[in-house]
Amino acid sequence: MSFYTNKSFTFDSVYVHCGYSVVGPKEENGPLGEWFDKAYSNDMAGEKTFEKAEKRMFIDAFSGLLNKACLYANQVDCVVGGDLVNQIISTAFAMREFPLPFLGLYNACGTFVESLIVGSMLADNYLNNVACLSGSHFSTAERQFRYPLELGVLRSPVTQWTATGAGCTMLCNKLQPNDVPVKITAATIGKVVDYGIMDVNNMGAAMAPAAVDTIQRHLDNRGTSPSDYSLILSGDLGLLGKSITKDLLARRGIDIADNYADCGAALYYPEQKTYMGGSGAACSAVVFNSKILENLKRGKIKRLMLVGTGALMNSMTSFQGESIPCIAHCVEMEGY
Amino acid sequence: MSFYTNKSFTFDSVYVHCGYSVVGPKEENGPLGEWFDKAYSNDMAGEKTFEKAEKRMFIDAFSGLLNKACLYANQVDCVVGGDLVNQIISTAFAMREFPLPFLGLYNACGTFVESLIVGSMLADNYLNNVACLSGSHFSTAERQFRYPLELGVLRSPVTQWTATGAGCTMLCNKLQPNDVPVKITAATIGKVVDYGIMDVNNMGAAMAPAAVDTIQRHLDNRGTSPSDYSLILSGDLGLLGKSITKDLLARRGIDIADNYADCGAALYYPEQKTYMGGSGAACSAVVFNSKILENLKRGKIKRLMLVGTGALMNSMTSFQGESIPCIAHCVEMEGY
Repeated sequence: MSFYTNKSFTFDSVYVHCGYSVVGPKEENGPLGEWFDKAYSNDMAGEKTFEKAEKRMFIDAFSGLLNKACLYANQVDCVVGGDLVNQIISTAFAMREFPLPFLGLYNACGTFVESLIVGSMLADNYLNNVACLSGSHFSTAERQFRYPLELGVLRSPVTQWTATGAGCTMLCNKLQPNDVPVKITAATIGKVVDYGIMDVNNMGAAMAPAAVDTIQRHLDNRGTSPSDYSLILSGDLGLLGKSITKDLLARRGIDIADNYADCGAALYYPEQKTYMGGSGAACSAVVFNSKILENLKRGKIKRLMLVGTGALMNSMTSFQGESIPCIAHCVEMEGY
Repeated sequence: MSFYTNKSFTFDSVYVHCGYSVVGPKEENGPLGEWFDKAYSNDMAGEKTFEKAEKRMFIDAFSGLLNKACLYANQVDCVVGGDLVNQIISTAFAMREFPLPFLGLYNACGTFVESLIVGSMLADNYLNNVACLSGSHFSTAERQFRYPLELGVLRSPVTQWTATGAGCTMLCNKLQPNDVPVKITAATIGKVVDYGIMDVNNMGAAMAPAAVDTIQRHLDNRGTSPSDYSLILSGDLGLLGKSITKDLLARRGIDIADNYADCGAALYYPEQKTYMGGSGAACSAVVFNSKILENLKRGKIKRLMLVGTGALMNSMTSFQGESIPCIAHCVEMEGY
């Protein structure tokens, strides 16, 4: 297809042991509310600043995961992950509470799937238990990437709502006793794709071409077609980005309409006024670590393609006249 | 030693094919000036903003590496790396120019060594040619982490000078024809360590305990002693951090005084008024990809322990009263 190398690669022995998700009140009131492990009654999570609240969510997600996995912290060999706040402080400050090896990642809202890829490489070859962690907070993202919340800026109809939550997944290189096997089988690393979108309110349109590139490469490399998957699930393209992705792939002769969903588009009811749906690193992290993983374990999803999308700009690049480069990473999983 | 897991791991077949370094004028005028591949006559690198200049350095470093490695861009299977600017835009925007799979990393100034670890995992198991990339720019870092440059704030005597430059390393899973073998043999992933230092001008003191933790764990896990290494090289602890690291390790019965150096401490002459020396993600990236790699290839360094140190705060965490959590990653290399 392309002149450039487009390798996907496969994993021999990586199992998803379990996942844990924490969310804010708005996410709890959405269509997936009952699936999440923990919800806060307000988005401060008992802390004094939004940033500290985000860190608290990360600590709670990781602690919850340890409980659910029946593992002590000292049995975890490495934590990989990141978040949207400058210098990924939510993840780094959360990991200050746990003396564990830590690899910090950043690919914006694609960070959760990136963490599954790096975590799988570690579990497949070098370590036993690896935790993958990501999330976001509406208020930290809004004031960092857009406007001070106090300003009450009118939202554009193409905007999405940065989800408040954190999700954490435990990967193991051996099947645990009594565990239902969910395997991570393959990955395709995303390329930076920029179609020249300048509107920071329209992330779905900016990120869709990156998702298209990765989905197409993954299908080509794996020799599969969309119907081979129970579900193709993108991270946070939202309603508009989802529709663009479907259209762009259709033009390339790839029809994903029948089994395609987007975490951001699924996270809220229309009456919650998020316009195009959810966005943020929490989208794929909390949706995967709740309903999706549960359905993989229950055999309702046999084969999953999870595509984490991210927009790689910061607020300064927009001021300096740059468009928005985007990326999408993909992992493939099999339930039984 | 500790209740917690402390695993190091080894690589079977990861070779450092070559490295490339670009620096600003101040670094060219330092003691290592002659070793760098390219230097700019001024720190704008022909661009209009400091941020665009940093991106330009990353593009030039990666392009230079391709030339030196005699590889077309399409022969590179993945690029891994990151930088200090919010949302690692220097790396992400540089990678917009190359349609290659990209994993974004962030562990502050430890990002270069982190990229060598993740790159080694990829080259060891999944891909052939992987490029590892990091760097920093004095002016982007200064105005993002400290004060506007125009303010002319007096520098504290314990400060370091964020190095301007970018370094890039090509890893391969096979020895190239006529290549001198330099192998990456092992890695230890850092933990987040926070001794409560609050002074953002004193990064060396904040980061030293993280370096101590990682060096000690690496020696324990490998069953080696400091004298087994030709050189133990930390990233950007500077003169004060270097001295603290040496002292803290001595108190634990580990004497590294004879073969220990720090990239930041080696980068400038005292009369260049950087006080405690260099800092920033560029430190380890440009020093390793010039003199150090050359000396590994020439057989002057037989066995290297490279320890990349990073401070994981952002400017807001200091305003919110937090101390500075730090991390240090370690890779071990062998020349012949």
